[in-house]
Amino acid sequence: MRIPVAVRRYLPVLDWGRDYDKSALSNDLMAAVIVTIMLIPQSLAYALLAGLPPEAGLYASIVPILLYAVFGTSRALAVGPVAVVSLMTAAALGNIADQGTMGYALAALTLALLSGVMLLVMGVFKLGFLANFLSHPVISGFITASGVIIAASQIKHLLGIDASGGNLAELLMSIWGNLGNVNWTTVSIGVSATLFLFWVRKGLKPFLRARGVGPRAADVATKAGPVAAVVVTTLAVWFFDLAGQGVKIVGAVPQSLPPLTMPDLSFDLMGNLLLPAFLISVIGFVESISVAQTLAAKRRQRINPDQELIGLGAANIGAAFTGGYPVTGGFARSVVNFDAGAQTPATGAYTAVGLAIAALALTPLVFFLPQATLAATIIVAVLTLVDFTILKKSWSYSKSDFAAVLTTMLITLGSGVELGVTCGVVLSIFLHLYKTTKPHIAEVGLVPGTEHFRNINRHDVETCPTVLTLRIDESLYFANARFLEDCIYDRLAGDTCLRHVVLMCSAINEIDFSALESLEAINTRLRDMGIKLHLSEVKGPVMDRLKKQHFISDLTGSVFLSQHEAYVALGKVAA
Amino acid sequence: MRIPVAVRRYLPVLDWGRDYDKSALSNDLMAAVIVTIMLIPQSLAYALLAGLPPEAGLYASIVPILLYAVFGTSRALAVGPVAVVSLMTAAALGNIADQGTMGYALAALTLALLSGVMLLVMGVFKLGFLANFLSHPVISGFITASGVIIAASQIKHLLGIDASGGNLAELLMSIWGNLGNVNWTTVSIGVSATLFLFWVRKGLKPFLRARGVGPRAADVATKAGPVAAVVVTTLAVWFFDLAGQGVKIVGAVPQSLPPLTMPDLSFDLMGNLLLPAFLISVIGFVESISVAQTLAAKRRQRINPDQELIGLGAANIGAAFTGGYPVTGGFARSVVNFDAGAQTPATGAYTAVGLAIAALALTPLVFFLPQATLAATIIVAVLTLVDFTILKKSWSYSKSDFAAVLTTMLITLGSGVELGVTCGVVLSIFLHLYKTTKPHIAEVGLVPGTEHFRNINRHDVETCPTVLTLRIDESLYFANARFLEDCIYDRLAGDTCLRHVVLMCSAINEIDFSALESLEAINTRLRDMGIKLHLSEVKGPVMDRLKKQHFISDLTGSVFLSQHEAYVALGKVAA
Repeated sequence: MRIPVAVRRYLPVLDWGRDYDKSALSNDLMAAVIVTIMLIPQSLAYALLAGLPPEAGLYASIVPILLYAVFGTSRALAVGPVAVVSLMTAAALGNIADQGTMGYALAALTLALLSGVMLLVMGVFKLGFLANFLSHPVISGFITASGVIIAASQIKHLLGIDASGGNLAELLMSIWGNLGNVNWTTVSIGVSATLFLFWVRKGLKPFLRARGVGPRAADVATKAGPVAAVVVTTLAVWFFDLAGQGVKIVGAVPQSLPPLTMPDLSFDLMGNLLLPAFLISVIGFVESISVAQTLAAKRRQRINPDQELIGLGAANIGAAFTGGYPVTGGFARSVVNFDAGAQTPATGAYTAVGLAIAALALTPLVFFLPQATLAATIIVAVLTLVDFTILKKSWSYSKSDFAAVLTTMLITLGSGVELGVTCGVVLSIFLHLYKTTKPHIAEVGLVPGTEHFRNINRHDVETCPTVLTLRIDESLYFANARFLEDCIYDRLAGDTCLRHVVLMCSAINEIDFSALESLEAINTRLRDMGIKLHLSEVKGPVMDRLKKQHFISDLTGSVFLSQHEAYVALGKVAA
Repeated sequence: MRIPVAVRRYLPVLDWGRDYDKSALSNDLMAAVIVTIMLIPQSLAYALLAGLPPEAGLYASIVPILLYAVFGTSRALAVGPVAVVSLMTAAALGNIADQGTMGYALAALTLALLSGVMLLVMGVFKLGFLANFLSHPVISGFITASGVIIAASQIKHLLGIDASGGNLAELLMSIWGNLGNVNWTTVSIGVSATLFLFWVRKGLKPFLRARGVGPRAADVATKAGPVAAVVVTTLAVWFFDLAGQGVKIVGAVPQSLPPLTMPDLSFDLMGNLLLPAFLISVIGFVESISVAQTLAAKRRQRINPDQELIGLGAANIGAAFTGGYPVTGGFARSVVNFDAGAQTPATGAYTAVGLAIAALALTPLVFFLPQATLAATIIVAVLTLVDFTILKKSWSYSKSDFAAVLTTMLITLGSGVELGVTCGVVLSIFLHLYKTTKPHIAEVGLVPGTEHFRNINRHDVETCPTVLTLRIDESLYFANARFLEDCIYDRLAGDTCLRHVVLMCSAINEIDFSALESLEAINTRLRDMGIKLHLSEVKGPVMDRLKKQHFISDLTGSVFLSQHEAYVALGKVAA
């Protein structure tokens, strides 16, 4: 049976599903078991971070994973709640409703729906390139800053106090002010869980390897660390009745498959959530695609960014109708999935089944799970994302990249992820454009013995007194058209022996309408001064367009294929 | 006496003032007389267009001209009320207060002050490049659309009816609904004045020349046309008492030098006017600088854009404190000034004196001047700016330039200049960036018999099967870094004999931090595939920066000065 290409484009499952065999099945099943165990505490924790009841995290991991398995192209990506998106969800909904209310949970569904629809639309219209405007410095800046904010937001759970604040400074002040109410039992659970998890992450593997444990077993032990922390602290709370001493626990979680839910579709609410939903979509997509590409590259596989948008869109729409909240492909869970040997998206389906069983049968087991343990798993997970060295690296390479990192970090810390990322993107676009407004223009000459032309100030080159050759190191467009005119007129002022100006166009990738008008003005002005204007090394696509206009026929000089031809022809005229 | 450079930078008057002689004086005086006569009706008309009392137009022409003469660099620019800025003033103030109220006039002063301060700040911080982001297509689009709107707004004065509307459609509907109230005496004055002025502009000069009148006299007669229309219609209204028949006249204009005024400095008002003031500043600056550069080029003079900002800023601040409203260098008045032989900015000073005399002594003469005549002068002036051929021209050259023109025009017509220009600028920046996200990447080969390399698909070139040379026709930055990776991996897939990939960097003007990370990823990936990555023709500034990082030392291949060297070296290895 042949499946039409159009259908296969939108359903990658048809590609890998046909070759699915026993070996893939066993690899995928094994990976699914490991991931499921890891996801249970993580999902609960991220739901709390988003201000939602813990079961929302489980629900957001079931149907979305299944839908991504059908529509996504990455073989190892694990979709579900992630730290940054959970934080952004809490920030977006904080202005709409109070945490714990029905309106808050409904708004979370609406946010997931809007975000899903946006991702789907971007995928269908192939707008994935929009994510490219988030530069690496901006991404690094906001990930690091978000990590700090998320970790700070969990401190109150570690201490067993109440604290709140719209930004990092307020939050820290609020924690400081409430330090008197610290619950020491909670602190001992939270701090020891945090220290234990850090040690598991950094020290357990070398420790086990040194004692002769095989690498694979050591790996599994490391991944089981969070589960061990959950089990031990839950048992401790139950056995010693620590809840009676003020330790906050997860409490009753309904035993149920994901419910069918209907997002709130009121225009007011949707209007308020449009911008947050857009930013969640783009940032979620960037996080997801970065992880997916990194993992795909390791196995020489390719992923399709536009189809990824569709996969993530479907996952979010699924979350909206099954009691979840915005999801995306997470870094930690995907890496675990990959390391555990997941071979196809079917792993996701098995994970979904595992989580469904957990939601249906295992939720009573987490009744006594202390919130401090969940906070510890979040803190340890996000602090690995925090990387301030990007500041130093970008500073040494380029001040404008540094400016973008710093701005994104500071504004994210001060006013939240949404404003931070927006400012970072706007600033990096502005700085990029600014650089192009004053392009580098080099006067070039012939490198002796070759046909190659280089900057007269950097290389020992031959020139001809009647010929001025300028290499313009930028596309010509409205923002720099006038600058070129100024440069040429300034260079000509006072130079009386010049007869020819050659614009070497090897670095000109576009000449727009405004720049064409400037070139026409330059041509006319030089003609009045008795100087001919020539072009050399004009690229194919640029020449195609110039030929449609009268500029080429009005040109006082010629168009040369290579700068060397121009030099030979004009040098002879002069000699 | 030597004047410090820093002082001379900000006071161009010190440059030209030192060489001022008798011949310059007589030229300037003659030009001033002609310009003064032309400016009287024009200033009154533009003030009415801005919704202000007619004398505001005179006041806005006196002190601003003097200040520009001191601080400006253009020798022929005439500063004062212009059509587009008057329209934008009316639009900005329409939301603040009712026309004819004290609040409206005060807000106009505030607008001029804000605009002046912004221009001054932009000048001091050398932000004149910001104006470059208004591309020629956007400027053409909004000038044409504004011309249409301004002409439409004057129809009611020609017909002697009331009409109003927030955009063109509403305005035309309102005129249509009021057609029953047409005052036929007004119509006969207005329409005949309009026809007369069009004829003066198009037909008078050939008519006089054909009858043996000298070219200079014919020119003067053409310029005197509007004055003739003013005199004749004013006399007619007075003699036949047409005001009694419902013809609206200018009426009493106070006989006074420009008053000292204080703008309203309340925070609320300034907050509301910030954005309009910014747009008025930028658009006014663009109009002014275009005119100034055109005129300067004709006489081989140079103007300094940043100093122009200071000159215009001073002029607007002057307008704010002397009963005016936002001003800029106008096209029509500057051309008249230039044609009349103005040689230095002193012409402006003499014009100011002329207008001051007019404000003090001649205002009773315009009592009976019909508003329909002023409307006719505005219509004829702005319709010469309307040029729809830009649509065809830009369509044939580049679809994205066309999109920018069309968007600017339609949104300006539908929702006003501010939104139209903003959308036009945003769209043209977006389209420019979009083009750079998917750069042209050409596979190149050697043009036989030369050292020149061109696209293998366009030229008949030599290549070597083990060497792939890609010329990347764009700077590498965050928005296209990932695209390059995809392109290279796609090209490599299936090609098993390749051993070398050369990136020819002649068109790469910048490599930012994100692109550097992509290059590092490509280098690593190719290394794993047993392929070496080389660079050729890297520009000086780009190489300087790359050398600071470990990328060059990690590079599996070499960096070649010219592509030809790379070809020879790698071809030999293969042979």
